[in-house]
Amino acid sequence: MRILVLHGPNLNLLGSREPEIYGSATLAEIDAALTTRGQALGVEVATVQSNSEGALVDAIQGAQGSADGIVINPAGYSHTSVAIRDALVAVGLPAVEVHLSNPAAREEFRHVDLVAGACLGTVTGFGRDGYLIALEQLVARLRAR
Amino acid sequence: MRILVLHGPNLNLLGSREPEIYGSATLAEIDAALTTRGQALGVEVATVQSNSEGALVDAIQGAQGSADGIVINPAGYSHTSVAIRDALVAVGLPAVEVHLSNPAAREEFRHVDLVAGACLGTVTGFGRDGYLIALEQLVARLRAR
Amino acid sequence: MRILVLHGPNLNLLGSREPEIYGSATLAEIDAALTTRGQALGVEVATVQSNSEGALVDAIQGAQGSADGIVINPAGYSHTSVAIRDALVAVGLPAVEVHLSNPAAREEFRHVDLVAGACLGTVTGFGRDGYLIALEQLVARLRAR
Amino acid sequence: MRILVLHGPNLNLLGSREPEIYGSATLAEIDAALTTRGQALGVEVATVQSNSEGALVDAIQGAQGSADGIVINPAGYSHTSVAIRDALVAVGLPAVEVHLSNPAAREEFRHVDLVAGACLGTVTGFGRDGYLIALEQLVARLRAR
Amino acid sequence: MRILVLHGPNLNLLGSREPEIYGSATLAEIDAALTTRGQALGVEVATVQSNSEGALVDAIQGAQGSADGIVINPAGYSHTSVAIRDALVAVGLPAVEVHLSNPAAREEFRHVDLVAGACLGTVTGFGRDGYLIALEQLVARLRAR
Amino acid sequence: MRILVLHGPNLNLLGSREPEIYGSATLAEIDAALTTRGQALGVEVATVQSNSEGALVDAIQGAQGSADGIVINPAGYSHTSVAIRDALVAVGLPAVEVHLSNPAAREEFRHVDLVAGACLGTVTGFGRDGYLIALEQLVARLRAR
Amino acid sequence: MRILVLHGPNLNLLGSREPEIYGSATLAEIDAALTTRGQALGVEVATVQSNSEGALVDAIQGAQGSADGIVINPAGYSHTSVAIRDALVAVGLPAVEVHLSNPAAREEFRHVDLVAGACLGTVTGFGRDGYLIALEQLVARLRAR
Amino acid sequence: MRILVLHGPNLNLLGSREPEIYGSATLAEIDAALTTRGQALGVEVATVQSNSEGALVDAIQGAQGSADGIVINPAGYSHTSVAIRDALVAVGLPAVEVHLSNPAAREEFRHVDLVAGACLGTVTGFGRDGYLIALEQLVARLRAR
Amino acid sequence: MRILVLHGPNLNLLGSREPEIYGSATLAEIDAALTTRGQALGVEVATVQSNSEGALVDAIQGAQGSADGIVINPAGYSHTSVAIRDALVAVGLPAVEVHLSNPAAREEFRHVDLVAGACLGTVTGFGRDGYLIALEQLVARLRAR
Amino acid sequence: MRILVLHGPNLNLLGSREPEIYGSATLAEIDAALTTRGQALGVEVATVQSNSEGALVDAIQGAQGSADGIVINPAGYSHTSVAIRDALVAVGLPAVEVHLSNPAAREEFRHVDLVAGACLGTVTGFGRDGYLIALEQLVARLRAR
Amino acid sequence: MRILVLHGPNLNLLGSREPEIYGSATLAEIDAALTTRGQALGVEVATVQSNSEGALVDAIQGAQGSADGIVINPAGYSHTSVAIRDALVAVGLPAVEVHLSNPAAREEFRHVDLVAGACLGTVTGFGRDGYLIALEQLVARLRAR
Amino acid sequence: MRILVLHGPNLNLLGSREPEIYGSATLAEIDAALTTRGQALGVEVATVQSNSEGALVDAIQGAQGSADGIVINPAGYSHTSVAIRDALVAVGLPAVEVHLSNPAAREEFRHVDLVAGACLGTVTGFGRDGYLIALEQLVARLRAR
Repeated sequence: MRILVLHGPNLNLLGSREPEIYGSATLAEIDAALTTRGQALGVEVATVQSNSEGALVDAIQGAQGSADGIVINPAGYSHTSVAIRDALVAVGLPAVEVHLSNPAAREEFRHVDLVAGACLGTVTGFGRDGYLIALEQLVARLRAR
Repeated sequence: MRILVLHGPNLNLLGSREPEIYGSATLAEIDAALTTRGQALGVEVATVQSNSEGALVDAIQGAQGSADGIVINPAGYSHTSVAIRDALVAVGLPAVEVHLSNPAAREEFRHVDLVAGACLGTVTGFGRDGYLIALEQLVARLRAR
Repeated sequence: MRILVLHGPNLNLLGSREPEIYGSATLAEIDAALTTRGQALGVEVATVQSNSEGALVDAIQGAQGSADGIVINPAGYSHTSVAIRDALVAVGLPAVEVHLSNPAAREEFRHVDLVAGACLGTVTGFGRDGYLIALEQLVARLRAR
Repeated sequence: MRILVLHGPNLNLLGSREPEIYGSATLAEIDAALTTRGQALGVEVATVQSNSEGALVDAIQGAQGSADGIVINPAGYSHTSVAIRDALVAVGLPAVEVHLSNPAAREEFRHVDLVAGACLGTVTGFGRDGYLIALEQLVARLRAR
Repeated sequence: MRILVLHGPNLNLLGSREPEIYGSATLAEIDAALTTRGQALGVEVATVQSNSEGALVDAIQGAQGSADGIVINPAGYSHTSVAIRDALVAVGLPAVEVHLSNPAAREEFRHVDLVAGACLGTVTGFGRDGYLIALEQLVARLRAR
Repeated sequence: MRILVLHGPNLNLLGSREPEIYGSATLAEIDAALTTRGQALGVEVATVQSNSEGALVDAIQGAQGSADGIVINPAGYSHTSVAIRDALVAVGLPAVEVHLSNPAAREEFRHVDLVAGACLGTVTGFGRDGYLIALEQLVARLRAR
Repeated sequence: MRILVLHGPNLNLLGSREPEIYGSATLAEIDAALTTRGQALGVEVATVQSNSEGALVDAIQGAQGSADGIVINPAGYSHTSVAIRDALVAVGLPAVEVHLSNPAAREEFRHVDLVAGACLGTVTGFGRDGYLIALEQLVARLRAR
Repeated sequence: MRILVLHGPNLNLLGSREPEIYGSATLAEIDAALTTRGQALGVEVATVQSNSEGALVDAIQGAQGSADGIVINPAGYSHTSVAIRDALVAVGLPAVEVHLSNPAAREEFRHVDLVAGACLGTVTGFGRDGYLIALEQLVARLRAR
Repeated sequence: MRILVLHGPNLNLLGSREPEIYGSATLAEIDAALTTRGQALGVEVATVQSNSEGALVDAIQGAQGSADGIVINPAGYSHTSVAIRDALVAVGLPAVEVHLSNPAAREEFRHVDLVAGACLGTVTGFGRDGYLIALEQLVARLRAR
Repeated sequence: MRILVLHGPNLNLLGSREPEIYGSATLAEIDAALTTRGQALGVEVATVQSNSEGALVDAIQGAQGSADGIVINPAGYSHTSVAIRDALVAVGLPAVEVHLSNPAAREEFRHVDLVAGACLGTVTGFGRDGYLIALEQLVARLRAR
Repeated sequence: MRILVLHGPNLNLLGSREPEIYGSATLAEIDAALTTRGQALGVEVATVQSNSEGALVDAIQGAQGSADGIVINPAGYSHTSVAIRDALVAVGLPAVEVHLSNPAAREEFRHVDLVAGACLGTVTGFGRDGYLIALEQLVARLRAR
Repeated sequence: MRILVLHGPNLNLLGSREPEIYGSATLAEIDAALTTRGQALGVEVATVQSNSEGALVDAIQGAQGSADGIVINPAGYSHTSVAIRDALVAVGLPAVEVHLSNPAAREEFRHVDLVAGACLGTVTGFGRDGYLIALEQLVARLRAR
């Protein structure tokens, strides 16, 4: 079983970017933790980060045939991207949305999420752990099918 | 360490209530799983279910002094209750919000969440597991303080 | 066949409460008329009034197994309660909504009804008779199944 | 005592039009039932169906002097017609609104009703019976004056 | 003359709850001050606190016959309760609304007040003193009748 | 010079329809006054009343070639008719809008006017005189061309 | 009988200000025409122009005792001034609103008029003639009392 | 195979009506082109134009049994008619919507289309050709069934 | 200690202006009562009334150095003035807002208050007494600093 | 004459992506059909697909000098892209918008189209044929210039 | 060449007013800097500050004939004044808008700017320098004509 | 000191793109002017143009360590990009926003700016000069730190 983990715009800055909001873990650390947890779960984890909406759509499409499910943190695109939502629906792979912070406790424009409705579920506010939770839940649901 | 788990309106019907949305686990089973997981984590778990907004506020207040954190599924009150939000802020205990289903994939009136902004984070769409995740995250964050 | 009739907040004041809007019949008189009409229809009628949203949710849940359908006047909660709507959907019993007055002819905030969409139909503006109509229609529909 | 029953646009198709929403009774059957019920009540019932907003306004106006009250199902015009609302207020005859289906359980644009505020009350969701209820309530209220 | 003072949800936590917003007076101190002021004014003061919307409606109704006016701080229910508004109108007793803080200087969702329109007036932002002002104004208005 | 005067829905009831809002002049009296004023101005006045949006569009179209300008009181259609607006623009004849009452002082839904933007100007609130003013202004503007 | 005519902000520029919208008549010419028409009607006309919302409120207040009615063109303040609306209601003198252009055919922010609801009626789109019409209508209505 | 082509309000003025928006083809020319194209396609084309919403509903209903599909340009009613939408759904015939101009490039109130959601598809902005495209597409889809 | 009391537009008409809403006290009587109460409190009270938004801003600015706090009834400017709000924040003096009537029980456009958020608190609905309460509260808070 | 055909995000998945909505034709088949139709029309057709908003803007810009017109299906970017709209206006080439499905019959967020207003016209709901229609219309309009 | 610089409400307090937002320069210092920069540019600079919307309109009008362009900081009136916008358009002088702070980074009600649309451009967020930039740009544009 | 200047979508077309709105300067000319002005200011200027939201986010991120501040014209992405806003906040470099035209004087959808709130200030409407102003202001502010 293979899982694609997608990191949206500005997540490559993790660690230095507003650590009081996003935590001090770097993206490399998060990816390493995901790989390790994947090994423990017996699944292969591939991770991709991009600042480009189109590259994220590309990556979601590329998961067809090469992955069994998707963990996605669309970051700023959560609130503005119909294209990413459409891509998730188009490939038909189960997906889980992650946010490092809790958007409901931030600015008004972060309270609308166009992508969440195309996912099985969401995890927000738990920093790095949110990714691990999403990975575990996704694997569990894929295995339960 | 003691954790209060609060179940909002209609969650006592779990198992029989729209199982295609909410899953087949009963509330007793969820509470049992929470207790077991609490034991594994070395924390005491108390659970309360109520259909009453006021009783949920009472229970949140009652957690002051008797609990170290709160896991809450406000169910239908998520979208309409300032009182529950105020209670969480008033007692000042860290809280995590859980939803069995993914409200973002349901009716428009479920896309507004007045309670989430008073929580550390939220977990949606993973049925029973969402509670266990919330419990673990809450305990981890309390221990990290 | 058993029918539960639920009266929402402030309906216990009927007779004295703004009689130019709500009519001069007391709730006892309405309940008596419902019982009598129920006897004529060969159904058992139980009535509950509560000012509490949670108690109304409790009562709806309690109808599972003890009643075959619900007549409900959610009064002020019609415009604000997702919990009552969820309860009606959760128990899966057919329901009919009643309003003594015609909300469409009153203040703007009474023009939104969160509960009506979970009912078979609604009767507004006919005072006490609205309850009897709702009872008859509910019984007829239950018998037609 | 004479009652005018007005059927709005597309109601002449009843029986064949989306029977899962509107029921299988034809308009002729509904009109026959209204006439029979009128006879039982000792009132004369005239029925008019039109797909034209203007013709419905004409008919409402024509009721002045020839009818004592109006039962109206404005159908699609419920949501868009100030002219019909104005006509009901202008003739000053008591009116009751009927909907075969329950608009609150349908599309968002059916949740606004410009005509209802000019009526004594409304009955929705009971198919053919809604008309008979409206007729009875209207007659009862006219007699109680 | 008897006055009922109603405290809404979370006001029982006063003193410890966000003192920078709500002040350091406890509810017992406020109630004691109200009783003392009542004695000075020659009126009897009864106080009730509840976290439950329904219990507040109950208490408002219970004031009929047992009180001449109502001082109410609906707290979080100010922004969401049609039922409390309806109760105040239903019992027909003059009422004054109090807020410890100034909602106009806080979150957007506190700028809508469904209860205020059913009151003679409102006092916001003066902490404990707001209750005493409301009491005095209510008594003065009752005596002026 | 010929002027077409169009009266929208329910204006045929003038005199008896809510005289406190619309005045006691009948439509025949208004039409007579318009004819007389037209003679004084040396213009021919034709008047049409219809309750039908389509018939009003027909009449506006019919003015092409047979009239030099249009005075129109769209009544209830003012707030809902794109078709009448389009007709006025399509025939390209100068038009003046009249309202007997002052919509700005009435219900909220009368504060939107889709037709006014296709007219030279509007006269509201002066009852019968509004028509005479509109006629005079229209003639003056036509002669000034 | 004395009539106060009030010209709002920027109307002193008439003649040179966007003549394609506001016409080529200067304010002095309009005032002269009003005086002449007033003489013909046997009423005294006083005119005031101000760019200041407060001065317009002052002038409306000053009309109490010194005038029998008010013709007002609030210009840009039509869309933003509660104070002018309140002043008209406070002095209780009948008023007529005039606009030189037709706001309904201009920018969206000119489609809201806070002042119009406090007037007997409005005249828009007829340039200088609008004032004369307003004067005549106001006098006629005052004489009809 | 028979196709009904419906032209909404003001389309009978084509050729003279704002030709820079709607083109210089007359309705007769469009109808002739449709007939010719219909012959080429081997289908019978009937065309109806009406300025009346009700007559358009009548015509849609009349298509039941006499036509296999509908091409409709609802013109101004596109933005305001629930009745036409309901009629299309009620008769259950496949329909295609045509607009001569491109409403998305015009006034804001033309950006809402209540009828389009009841059609297979829409063609906008191609003048006369839009009708021919709609006819061809409708025939192709009917034949593909 | 010196307190500036500011009265906004139309408050100089008090006593004669809609006494059923604003009470029968004149502004002179209110000012006299404020002076007397100020003497009892040992503070100097200066009062200013203006119908001009700018003059009110001037007066607020003038309070810097000459007053220790401000009582303000912005009247109609409450709902439209950013300039007054900015002035209160700019001078940094504590302020209390007063309304003679209860805006929450009046027209919709009075439910927005741009000034209240820059004040310590508000008193509404108590007529003349509201000013005295505001004065006392302001003095108490200034003395508590 | 050369025409650029642009396919937006996720259209490369055609054939496998929700075929009940988007049809079973693959993008290669659509492109082949476009090329063939182009040959029949005597025009050269180039096609580009990209999931990236920026690449689509690049391609539109690249059409300047290399193409005479553009057929574009912006897919998910239709509802969110000002940049694509600006690009079409900036290059000044005539464009036609295509949608495979009918957005008006889908989710609310697909009812806003920021790109359509920069096009000559739109074709929706006809699957592959929509592209061919757009191509033909575009060529016809370019030749008619 | 003469330039009028207009300072809106509360700008006379600069230096002492919320210096963390508005900077520490006083208005006199800003005016001196403007005069000096004007001399360097060879233009005469006149400056006016007023807290009154009407006085600002007066000053804009007064610029006709006495100035060649306007630099304006409407401060709080930016968000509420149609009259100032109309004045700028009426006098037809080129204008540039200045804000000391960046309104886009402040409260929601500062995100609407009614005046900016009547200006050549805007400069926000640069404190005193914004005025100098506006002056230079205005002079450059006037000279380029 | 190094400054990164970012040009958003379609700005590479400057000179040929709607010159009446955007001016006749090409992007190369603007970049040359920026370099020259940078030399005069003693700072190094690097410029990047991209049509891709993601590439702009990349470039902003790349400025960390390689630049001291950012001048950005987000063009069409100003109104739709949370990702660019987040990037500016994430890198924590001071930024100034430039628009060649004045969006406040253009279409409604250009009145919302998601990026401006993350900048020190904005300059709009001055074409090429806006960039130079932004550069100077940014340098001045960086030097003042």
